[in-house]
Amino acid sequence: MTHTTVAAYASPAPKAPLAKTTIPRRALGEHDILIEIKFAGICHSDIHQVNADWGVGTYPMVPGHEIAGVVAEVGSGVSKYALGDRVGVGCFVDSCRECENCKAGDEQYCTGAGGMYGTYNSRGRDGEPTYGGYSTHIVVDENYALRIPEGIELDVAAPLLCAGITLYSPLAHWNAGPGTKLAIIGLGGLGHMGVKIAHALGAEVTVLSQTLSKREDGLRLGADHYYATSDPATFEELAGRFDLILNTVSANLDLNAYLSLLRTDGTLVQIGGPEHPMEVAPFALIPGRKSLSGSMIGGIRETQEMLDFCAQHGIGSEIELIEATQINEAYERVQKSDVRYRFVIDASTI
Amino acid sequence: MTHTTVAAYASPAPKAPLAKTTIPRRALGEHDILIEIKFAGICHSDIHQVNADWGVGTYPMVPGHEIAGVVAEVGSGVSKYALGDRVGVGCFVDSCRECENCKAGDEQYCTGAGGMYGTYNSRGRDGEPTYGGYSTHIVVDENYALRIPEGIELDVAAPLLCAGITLYSPLAHWNAGPGTKLAIIGLGGLGHMGVKIAHALGAEVTVLSQTLSKREDGLRLGADHYYATSDPATFEELAGRFDLILNTVSANLDLNAYLSLLRTDGTLVQIGGPEHPMEVAPFALIPGRKSLSGSMIGGIRETQEMLDFCAQHGIGSEIELIEATQINEAYERVQKSDVRYRFVIDASTI
Repeated sequence: MTHTTVAAYASPAPKAPLAKTTIPRRALGEHDILIEIKFAGICHSDIHQVNADWGVGTYPMVPGHEIAGVVAEVGSGVSKYALGDRVGVGCFVDSCRECENCKAGDEQYCTGAGGMYGTYNSRGRDGEPTYGGYSTHIVVDENYALRIPEGIELDVAAPLLCAGITLYSPLAHWNAGPGTKLAIIGLGGLGHMGVKIAHALGAEVTVLSQTLSKREDGLRLGADHYYATSDPATFEELAGRFDLILNTVSANLDLNAYLSLLRTDGTLVQIGGPEHPMEVAPFALIPGRKSLSGSMIGGIRETQEMLDFCAQHGIGSEIELIEATQINEAYERVQKSDVRYRFVIDASTI
Repeated sequence: MTHTTVAAYASPAPKAPLAKTTIPRRALGEHDILIEIKFAGICHSDIHQVNADWGVGTYPMVPGHEIAGVVAEVGSGVSKYALGDRVGVGCFVDSCRECENCKAGDEQYCTGAGGMYGTYNSRGRDGEPTYGGYSTHIVVDENYALRIPEGIELDVAAPLLCAGITLYSPLAHWNAGPGTKLAIIGLGGLGHMGVKIAHALGAEVTVLSQTLSKREDGLRLGADHYYATSDPATFEELAGRFDLILNTVSANLDLNAYLSLLRTDGTLVQIGGPEHPMEVAPFALIPGRKSLSGSMIGGIRETQEMLDFCAQHGIGSEIELIEATQINEAYERVQKSDVRYRFVIDASTI
């Protein structure tokens, strides 16, 4: 069998605008499904990768790891999905399947050579470049696809595949629920998902944002409290308050100030990846047995659990739906934090 | 009732050598016990405090928070101890007793105004300066004294009150035991206690030391493996190996290198307090959901548990017993890491 050629939006070189092109998708293997992509979210990390901010990228690059669509074709051995099923693809499309983490369902932390196989800007098991969701179709192993339950529209479901699981996983891992005093730093694409999910989990949610400009939104999405971090009084008032803080901001913040908001045994989870090393005073952690931790997306099983939870609670992302021709403009706006709260590409316009 | 005057070794001013003097000890309150001090350990933090490295100190300063002795007198309401009982005093002699942490037995993390009352270089509940263990006697509330079980000699028990509990508490909190792959950075006063205790808990213990100069000692004390961190091959060989790393070193290390030795979900606990902020790369924590945490001594209940555990397993500190006149020389040697592994002052020479 030979590959299929499909339409996509790609960046031809580092920092270059995205333009329409065609890319190959592999012929269906035994356990592969062909997905007709309906929607693809724009994640800030798409922009970082297009710009090669994190090192060398593979070009042409087709970003997109927040993919929602329907099954258009199935391989001969596929058992999990049937034609017409509503499915999603997140940040990875394969992993070694043999390491301890893969076996435990933590494929995102695959310790095989090269780790998980990224949905784009990576190479697949066949050694060929992977291309992401800014495209009309994608071929993926059924074991790395997710079922999008009825009850979530596909457009607002797409961002759950990265932004949703990125917040759900640490909330689940650190047991956020009734009685948990939780703070979320930043109310953007990631943060707003955290507010919705944490609220549905029963936690008491505080948003810590630079200003109060999005306060009304934050409260509407489920926050119980909303504070401006530009106001020094915030740090006095909230000292020692939180069990858990999720930091979704990618800029370097004064982490010691935020660590002072934790209770004894509290944890600050770094989700955004700032450019420079984080500076932590030893005595911001030692008295109070506090932790600075990291968390990265989630495994397949947990992502499915998140989607089911979101469907049950009527949770989708807040989105601005755009046509493919608006991608470059959207990139500009994301970099200015001018989006409420996620751009989603209507793949029918590709 | 009036105070008692007792002999002590004190530093009269920042960085000044310690010299013999007399200090007041308060009259016995209802719940106080008078302890005849037999031995007092020299902790590196004594030197930092004498030198006012961590801010302003109160002088004359009588250091010492690793105190072992016998009960010489009891207040009218004392119920826990009787004359002649073998007792110890650690890093604090009181706390607010009302905050959540005090009530939970985590007095070391007391959130009352000013936190726990330090054994020295602090002020007691009566507002008077506290003086530590380089002295012949100390008066302490029975609720802040520890029972030293039969089966540990008082001289090797003294360092358990700080060094011992400082390592025991994180080992207990992070559940070190059979199956735990543990590393201890640094084989000094703290590290050698960690090796002994972790080995007795059943963990697989690796010492990470600058060189192999103390290798024989480390293995004798209970380490299963011993690596030199000056050898870059160590970091390659041990990548992803450990569930838990306890960092006892007070100098600033390349923490990212040590974090790379953790498995998924592993924790590096900072115990030593380096002078400069710790620098942590976000991607040293995020992929692998790793944690950088802190830990500080332990509460009264846990300290008693540690002493009972050490007695049961025949664990004491490795010490060099000195006379009081050798304190200043000992300070010099501690600063050169020239001690195996703890200096203990024979208080009968004060």
